[in-house]
Amino acid sequence: MCRWLAYSGSPLLLDTILYKPAHSLIDQSLHSRLGVETTNGDGFGVGWYTPDAEDGTPAVVRDVGPAWNNRNLREIAGHVSSPLFFAHIRASTGTAVQQTNSHPFRHGRWMWMHNGAIAGFPVIRRDLCLAVDPTLFTSIEGSTDSEVMFYLALTFGLRDDPPQAVARMAGFVERTAREHGVAHPLQMTVATTDGAAVWAFRYASEGTARSLFYSSRIQALQALHPDVAFLRDLSEETRLVVSEPLGELPGAWNEVPEHSYGVVRHGADELHPFAPVP
Amino acid sequence: MCRWLAYSGSPLLLDTILYKPAHSLIDQSLHSRLGVETTNGDGFGVGWYTPDAEDGTPAVVRDVGPAWNNRNLREIAGHVSSPLFFAHIRASTGTAVQQTNSHPFRHGRWMWMHNGAIAGFPVIRRDLCLAVDPTLFTSIEGSTDSEVMFYLALTFGLRDDPPQAVARMAGFVERTAREHGVAHPLQMTVATTDGAAVWAFRYASEGTARSLFYSSRIQALQALHPDVAFLRDLSEETRLVVSEPLGELPGAWNEVPEHSYGVVRHGADELHPFAPVP
Amino acid sequence: MCRWLAYSGSPLLLDTILYKPAHSLIDQSLHSRLGVETTNGDGFGVGWYTPDAEDGTPAVVRDVGPAWNNRNLREIAGHVSSPLFFAHIRASTGTAVQQTNSHPFRHGRWMWMHNGAIAGFPVIRRDLCLAVDPTLFTSIEGSTDSEVMFYLALTFGLRDDPPQAVARMAGFVERTAREHGVAHPLQMTVATTDGAAVWAFRYASEGTARSLFYSSRIQALQALHPDVAFLRDLSEETRLVVSEPLGELPGAWNEVPEHSYGVVRHGADELHPFAPVP
Amino acid sequence: MCRWLAYSGSPLLLDTILYKPAHSLIDQSLHSRLGVETTNGDGFGVGWYTPDAEDGTPAVVRDVGPAWNNRNLREIAGHVSSPLFFAHIRASTGTAVQQTNSHPFRHGRWMWMHNGAIAGFPVIRRDLCLAVDPTLFTSIEGSTDSEVMFYLALTFGLRDDPPQAVARMAGFVERTAREHGVAHPLQMTVATTDGAAVWAFRYASEGTARSLFYSSRIQALQALHPDVAFLRDLSEETRLVVSEPLGELPGAWNEVPEHSYGVVRHGADELHPFAPVP
Repeated sequence: MCRWLAYSGSPLLLDTILYKPAHSLIDQSLHSRLGVETTNGDGFGVGWYTPDAEDGTPAVVRDVGPAWNNRNLREIAGHVSSPLFFAHIRASTGTAVQQTNSHPFRHGRWMWMHNGAIAGFPVIRRDLCLAVDPTLFTSIEGSTDSEVMFYLALTFGLRDDPPQAVARMAGFVERTAREHGVAHPLQMTVATTDGAAVWAFRYASEGTARSLFYSSRIQALQALHPDVAFLRDLSEETRLVVSEPLGELPGAWNEVPEHSYGVVRHGADELHPFAPVP
Repeated sequence: MCRWLAYSGSPLLLDTILYKPAHSLIDQSLHSRLGVETTNGDGFGVGWYTPDAEDGTPAVVRDVGPAWNNRNLREIAGHVSSPLFFAHIRASTGTAVQQTNSHPFRHGRWMWMHNGAIAGFPVIRRDLCLAVDPTLFTSIEGSTDSEVMFYLALTFGLRDDPPQAVARMAGFVERTAREHGVAHPLQMTVATTDGAAVWAFRYASEGTARSLFYSSRIQALQALHPDVAFLRDLSEETRLVVSEPLGELPGAWNEVPEHSYGVVRHGADELHPFAPVP
Repeated sequence: MCRWLAYSGSPLLLDTILYKPAHSLIDQSLHSRLGVETTNGDGFGVGWYTPDAEDGTPAVVRDVGPAWNNRNLREIAGHVSSPLFFAHIRASTGTAVQQTNSHPFRHGRWMWMHNGAIAGFPVIRRDLCLAVDPTLFTSIEGSTDSEVMFYLALTFGLRDDPPQAVARMAGFVERTAREHGVAHPLQMTVATTDGAAVWAFRYASEGTARSLFYSSRIQALQALHPDVAFLRDLSEETRLVVSEPLGELPGAWNEVPEHSYGVVRHGADELHPFAPVP
Repeated sequence: MCRWLAYSGSPLLLDTILYKPAHSLIDQSLHSRLGVETTNGDGFGVGWYTPDAEDGTPAVVRDVGPAWNNRNLREIAGHVSSPLFFAHIRASTGTAVQQTNSHPFRHGRWMWMHNGAIAGFPVIRRDLCLAVDPTLFTSIEGSTDSEVMFYLALTFGLRDDPPQAVARMAGFVERTAREHGVAHPLQMTVATTDGAAVWAFRYASEGTARSLFYSSRIQALQALHPDVAFLRDLSEETRLVVSEPLGELPGAWNEVPEHSYGVVRHGADELHPFAPVP
């Protein structure tokens, strides 16, 4: 399993979110509280959008060691600002620890990151891969379930209708697994973005889904905590979606309901129910 | 492209072959003479059989940096003896530099390494992967053509009849490529072993195949060079197959003819013509 | 802080000790019970003696990632046997995570590994380095206190009288620290070996020293546990010294008293009090 | 030996300089033409200044593999713009390949990178280290001559008068080496910067110094090559200093005379003779 966060809002130095909070993602790499594993030391990644890039693609820097001792991540976080970035720390469930298995994954302008697992993935991996659009197949570089989920979602129309594409992906995974005798295969919190909006999903085929939280509206937080300097500089549009809260600020964090997804974008954010499309 | 060597014979410290020759594989990692690239710095691997292993599998140590500056490789080479080992240095033709893309590949007691490429691999990768036995498919961890060739050969009976399985693999690759408009896809020198025998193949769909050499019979070399101390300790059965000669000893190296394969095993070694099975 | 183990006795595949015990060193890399940190993921190393090495030096393989996900360590451990080996997992106290900071350190036939720290090391590092024999100074490759302690011990006669040299090293560190206002600088469990004997030290300038245990005599364990197959194959001379017990076998583990050192060698092992030489 | 470049001028995406030129630094990592070695694959680093950083320090990203296959470097280069950056590719002369031995080195706002070597460094390393200001000594993390040269220059006043400090460093190295019987120890091209100006030095104790070039004035180049689009966007103040030319543009490159140094800063750049201060 893993931990991740998605940030969208006022341009910020990455370390404001990645390192400075009391229970930052870097702290979670050593001491996760809500994850299945306490240690998430099997690679990490950060992806950020910047007006400097000519083609609108995000930069994606991924590596194989733990985040907590990685000096390059700290350098980047202390010197790069972005209005929209993803960060992910990995705890492998068995697949190789290699750069191409670290999240976020990227395709064109799109990024994707995942916490969870597909039960029985070794058994159904081939069938899932066969369902990927042949023109996309050769872009698969790693061996994780997460990357195959991304390419299935792209195959099912992620770039046109993300909630529908993710619902079809989830439905396809469940049906394929069932055909192989795995009744309840899917555990997932997923975030995806095109650089403008962020979609975040929380779902489990059975039982409690992995934890997921979103930050409260900045105006409400500013009213609650007029003394917290950090909040004053953030625009109303600023929003975080995280595997677990980055700190203890009262009123700051709200659990994403199970079987639902949220959309963070310019204008009013949204929260909707989520169900796989069979 | 890449460089490789296969050793079979009297148990030797690996560094006798890997580091000590004038134009050793480590030297070739910086200054290959016959390779398509002079630098082979995109990962390396060594695999060796040892009586210490309970299950007869070889140890396979692979890493992502250049061989020439890797201290762990030097440590292992200076402290491990083996009667049969493979070593490989990689020059990536574009696929990721990651441990699961470094050679040799292993499946049970079998190892496989490759120099060359499949032209048009991104286009036909999916069709090749689909032809892999479904029970083997999920063991594919990397993204190279070389690993897919290995799993195709396993699918086609490598464990029962290696020359036949490699011929079927080559024929299948050529046919699949042709269906996608690539007339002459295959360039390969391949070595494979089960720990008892070594099979080495040299083949190109068109033009000159990558270089491949085998060492002369030790008795003949001992007669030619009675003053070379190193040769005195080697058994008659000792044989090397290499991408390029490790030095200039007159009479030591013989080119493997194009479109042929050799077998190194206890008793008389063999050399046969090789042709893909369409 | 860190965790380590030293094995001496019947030649064993390394994984018998490194991976198979319930609370093996690999398990401790994720879930240490007695360490200052629960996670020891900042590099690792293993050093082993083998009759194959011409010059009597041990092989030392060290790397920078966590031990728990390192495939090369698993390969080596499953295919290499040794009658005497060291293994170490690191939790950095701030110095760089790099190969030259991973333990064990080696000088000629000698190895050294350490758990603990020198309080105020940044302040006294220079004075400690200056006290290293000038002919040894240039062999220092990393930036840890542990390596400087090793070179001080070598300077003070480690190769002639290890307990005396370590006592002088400890005394020198304490005096130097005191001169810089650090009253109680030293926390250490140290193991060192020349390939024939192993010396293990447990000491703290103040308070409780880091945990250290040694295994009971094999004959006694065999009598207590006649049904444990693993024990039957071990010679009487077999002994383990470990930062924390590898399992729960009753009667198997004994705490090394604080301020003491043990010697494991052919013939009767020894346990003595330890005090720094001022 | 190594290759490096220093850029100062109009803010540019790093890959404009690092990847796009015909004989870019990345190309030089595989195929250097003027270097002592053709391959520079023992680590790399890039350091850049950005208005985003609160404290004026540059970001320094360094790694241990070759630059040519590093995906994170390519990501950063394609998404980060800077008005002043350093880049370096390393060919180790024997010291460990580790992050702390990769250039550029940083101290506060200052960066430093070096091509060349100190002959006899293992012998005089200790004496050089002893001359480093004790308050700076503990910041030395690696084992290269280059980093010690940086800390000696800092000791001798780099932050106040760079040319004088480098001259005193060079003089001190030469004197110390001579005392140990090395008559002509120093080969160096060095670049250093505080984020506002860049100083570049070319010097050898004897014989020809390592190659060093600076780019012509942009106005002159624009007049010579009115059709080169790339040049049109660059400000008059833009200047490159490089180990070897990045391409064949006529009139673009000028050799830095031996035993001299240049200063690139706002306003007129300068070129002066350089001589060690004995």
